[in-house]
Amino acid sequence: MTEDMPCIASRLQTLRSQLQLLDCHACLVPVADYCRSFPLAPCERRLEWLSGFSGSAGMGAVSTTKAALFVDGRYTIQARMQMRSTSFKILDFRLTRIRKWLKNHVPSNGAIAIDARLHSDKDIKDLKSGLGKRKIVYIDQLIDNIWHDQPPSPRSAIFAHDVEYAGESRESKIDKLVHFQIRKGLDSLVLNDCASIAWLLNIRGSDIPHTPIKHALATVSRHGLVTLCVNLPKDTAAPDWLGQQVVVRPFDEFDAHIAELSGRVFVADTARHRIIRQLRKTGAKLCRGSDPCEMLKAIKNPVQVAGFRNAHLRDGVALAEFLAWLDERIAAGKLSESEAALQLLEFRGKSVWFRESSFETISATGSNGAIIHYRVVPDTERKLSDGDLYLVDSGGQYRDGTTDVTRTLPVGTVSPDHVRSYTLVLRGLIALLTAKWPDKSEGRAIDALARQFLWREQCDYAHGTGHGVGHFLSVHEGPANISRLSNIPLKKGMVLSVEPGFYASGEYGIRLENLAVVEACQPARDGQDREFLQFSNLTVVPFDRRLIDHSLLSSEELRWLNDYHAKTRTSLNSQCSPRAQKWLQWACAPLKT
Amino acid sequence: MTEDMPCIASRLQTLRSQLQLLDCHACLVPVADYCRSFPLAPCERRLEWLSGFSGSAGMGAVSTTKAALFVDGRYTIQARMQMRSTSFKILDFRLTRIRKWLKNHVPSNGAIAIDARLHSDKDIKDLKSGLGKRKIVYIDQLIDNIWHDQPPSPRSAIFAHDVEYAGESRESKIDKLVHFQIRKGLDSLVLNDCASIAWLLNIRGSDIPHTPIKHALATVSRHGLVTLCVNLPKDTAAPDWLGQQVVVRPFDEFDAHIAELSGRVFVADTARHRIIRQLRKTGAKLCRGSDPCEMLKAIKNPVQVAGFRNAHLRDGVALAEFLAWLDERIAAGKLSESEAALQLLEFRGKSVWFRESSFETISATGSNGAIIHYRVVPDTERKLSDGDLYLVDSGGQYRDGTTDVTRTLPVGTVSPDHVRSYTLVLRGLIALLTAKWPDKSEGRAIDALARQFLWREQCDYAHGTGHGVGHFLSVHEGPANISRLSNIPLKKGMVLSVEPGFYASGEYGIRLENLAVVEACQPARDGQDREFLQFSNLTVVPFDRRLIDHSLLSSEELRWLNDYHAKTRTSLNSQCSPRAQKWLQWACAPLKT
Repeated sequence: MTEDMPCIASRLQTLRSQLQLLDCHACLVPVADYCRSFPLAPCERRLEWLSGFSGSAGMGAVSTTKAALFVDGRYTIQARMQMRSTSFKILDFRLTRIRKWLKNHVPSNGAIAIDARLHSDKDIKDLKSGLGKRKIVYIDQLIDNIWHDQPPSPRSAIFAHDVEYAGESRESKIDKLVHFQIRKGLDSLVLNDCASIAWLLNIRGSDIPHTPIKHALATVSRHGLVTLCVNLPKDTAAPDWLGQQVVVRPFDEFDAHIAELSGRVFVADTARHRIIRQLRKTGAKLCRGSDPCEMLKAIKNPVQVAGFRNAHLRDGVALAEFLAWLDERIAAGKLSESEAALQLLEFRGKSVWFRESSFETISATGSNGAIIHYRVVPDTERKLSDGDLYLVDSGGQYRDGTTDVTRTLPVGTVSPDHVRSYTLVLRGLIALLTAKWPDKSEGRAIDALARQFLWREQCDYAHGTGHGVGHFLSVHEGPANISRLSNIPLKKGMVLSVEPGFYASGEYGIRLENLAVVEACQPARDGQDREFLQFSNLTVVPFDRRLIDHSLLSSEELRWLNDYHAKTRTSLNSQCSPRAQKWLQWACAPLKT
Repeated sequence: MTEDMPCIASRLQTLRSQLQLLDCHACLVPVADYCRSFPLAPCERRLEWLSGFSGSAGMGAVSTTKAALFVDGRYTIQARMQMRSTSFKILDFRLTRIRKWLKNHVPSNGAIAIDARLHSDKDIKDLKSGLGKRKIVYIDQLIDNIWHDQPPSPRSAIFAHDVEYAGESRESKIDKLVHFQIRKGLDSLVLNDCASIAWLLNIRGSDIPHTPIKHALATVSRHGLVTLCVNLPKDTAAPDWLGQQVVVRPFDEFDAHIAELSGRVFVADTARHRIIRQLRKTGAKLCRGSDPCEMLKAIKNPVQVAGFRNAHLRDGVALAEFLAWLDERIAAGKLSESEAALQLLEFRGKSVWFRESSFETISATGSNGAIIHYRVVPDTERKLSDGDLYLVDSGGQYRDGTTDVTRTLPVGTVSPDHVRSYTLVLRGLIALLTAKWPDKSEGRAIDALARQFLWREQCDYAHGTGHGVGHFLSVHEGPANISRLSNIPLKKGMVLSVEPGFYASGEYGIRLENLAVVEACQPARDGQDREFLQFSNLTVVPFDRRLIDHSLLSSEELRWLNDYHAKTRTSLNSQCSPRAQKWLQWACAPLKT
């Protein structure tokens, strides 16, 4: 057995003593919080504190003698590195594996401690089945109680996401939830997702990095009265502009508040088990289903779409400055991944509309580019070297929209293999950005359009083709997505990424990503009774011409590309520095047929 | 209320008297038989006898005063025509509609008569839920008892489908079912599908048109003893070549035979309720799941694939003769849809390997082509007229394989709209025939590849892109198919149709259909851990050059098409008449880039 690093060893020991006091034989520690925020605030990173693992998905399990970390394929390498000097065994993140581990390490009449704020009740139900007589004991703040230097809960100020950006007032949105309740014969509605609450109330905050959100839980009565539970900055009152329809209470009073609810109460399927337990105490009749804010939030209104377009123009200027700078610096050599990422952030920061990165930038050169969820860490950081492909996936939170863009660039010498692979990825991107499809088609119906050219060369990418994007909210927003499995119909107003890629493990990675909004095809074709949908592109950043073999493009594809580049230059030029203007002139010049 | 035609009126009256005698208030009459044969033998066409409706899917419902026919969208027009002079109300074929109808027309404590041989037990379970206290009464031969001139059950001779065609001996196949039983700890296995039995025992028959099959039900013991229940021709014994492993009993003894089974018995999900009732009587423990023969049968072995190729060459010769003849006759004018279909049958019949059509030929000109399930009937038959598109969808049962091919041809003048639509359909066909995709992809993952070009012009077709095809068996064979909904992974050795289309209602229809077999891509690409699959084309029939706008084709598509035509001519030429040879020379000449 591996010796744990001293701090991990001491935390495990404290946890085990705690379990003994509670008469429990094991516990689970997930990557999750009570109000489904992403990423997690420092005080919510319980698994990272306990084990050292910092990935965004995973589950820790600790028994009286053993410890395991369950992670999916994305995080296996990272987990192996981070858990090197610990006794945590790394296992595949599947419920059946977790259950099996618990059966092996908990006596048949033993008890497993779980913090009900951190697991959905479906997960707990699934877990329970097959555990025999082992029982689950709900311990609030299981880790928090032993985490002596746990950071405080975030208490950032609430700020308004005005209707000039949101395109719809909170009154109008609350009204929709009132109608939802009338239709379903409900007495109240629990909102268990802080992004839904931010959308509903047109509020934002700074509780976590990258997503401008407040930790919040809320309820909406059938009369439209909202009870919002949040931690405001010490000694400040709720802002007046929230109006009389919104009652603000401290975050920790949420449990007591929902214990007052009665009648028919709607709770989303994603709600944490703790919420269900509180409601069951009161005898409320639970109605379950999808969070009604989820689909409303996914469909952007014209004001939001206009904001997205403006944000993308500003982001395009920052990218043009960055790529112009990069081409000069690459020529000079010695640039590191983190330096490049910092410089990109600096260019974005020149816009007064820019607030922060919408996620931690992926700045990956050479073989690091093949690690799909790569983040620069000192151990693995590389310099951009001649012959590399450099992949940069980044985005910004602007007050009127969120961006997410990936480009791949050659460092010095270009190899024919790189060019061929890049061109296949580009063709997939173009195929989807120019596709039309019948209304009501699910994401999985169009996924293959972006893969078909890679498939013909027996290549593929091990991730989805696109994800939904929030409006000055989470850069990954459900429920819309484009993948082999996606059964969500794509609807007008949804904003999605389109991001095919190709990864040669240990060698290089290519990914090209634009955002786009779904719109109706105009004019509709006569005599066809189904409406057709298409994407309208949002991202305004050139594709690297050195990596395009235009003999592989069809004439339509070449026409689209030249048109895209011409529009890009026209849109960005006047906002750019002379250096970037010169670069745009080169980058956006038409490719010859 | 419409007056029923005299024969329908009298049959309904007899049925209602019968229901009264049985103390029942309504009954259901489906399009189905006990052993899942398709199409139905004349003696099994109960709904047609009762109502006059001859479609291949539907459900009749008769109460003491009302009658309804439930059909899906494919059959609405046909049903309206055929039910014109009856009291049957035509309704949408959905379980909820049927249940609602029964609730409206059966008293709340009433009874509904059902022939348990004709409904799966899942259907009955689904039906029961929501019927309140109404009970279901199982009446064997409900219709048969009052159908005085019911044709006799078919008693065709069994003939061998020798291992030289089947590629695998019945002993080897039975062995696989023995292993299936050992793996699942079974005592016996019920085979409720006559096509599975035909496959297992390498037997064929002539009980029904188009599919060379025997009505049969069977069981396989865990020791590999097969009890085969079939009606042989009067006064004939079972053929010796079936061997000692197969015991033959009359079809009607099947119910008594399964009443002797005990222990753990496997029954497919598709089994009729009657089978389940018989087994429950004996106290056998039922294990349910997919028919284990289904997937084994869907994956063709190399001998079967070679047979398919030979059958397609013969079929290609017949089509070349037909198309050459058609071009001459079209020029002369006055040809009718049925004349064309008959002539095609005659050309197919010239091969000694040909047995019969694999389904009733769709020979449809002009607006009839837009009716996807069109069959020539005297009322609607048209002559091929100048300016029409003529669509012919047909196939043959050859001793070594089954064919199914659709071509669309211009009659006289060609319109630009026809050419454009035809070319888009052709591009879809080529896209799928030349596609590669990762192993384990479901049919739905590649469906859009055939539709993408139509979609770009806001067009689509309201049917699947492809279906599985049996080997000298059913031309529509599960479980493989290619459609928006298909969740069945495509596997090496599956034979499928690829048949995109376009239909302008009231004007014209276009469909192009080839069969193809799924094979592994060779050589596999280095460094990729997933195997890729592709189609290998089987059908050898030219596409009509007058309907192709080759300026719309990519250079790869044009290359594929010219190559396809060159190979087609080479493969067929020596077997063709001088007329067809001359036609092939014209039809297969390269299209210029």
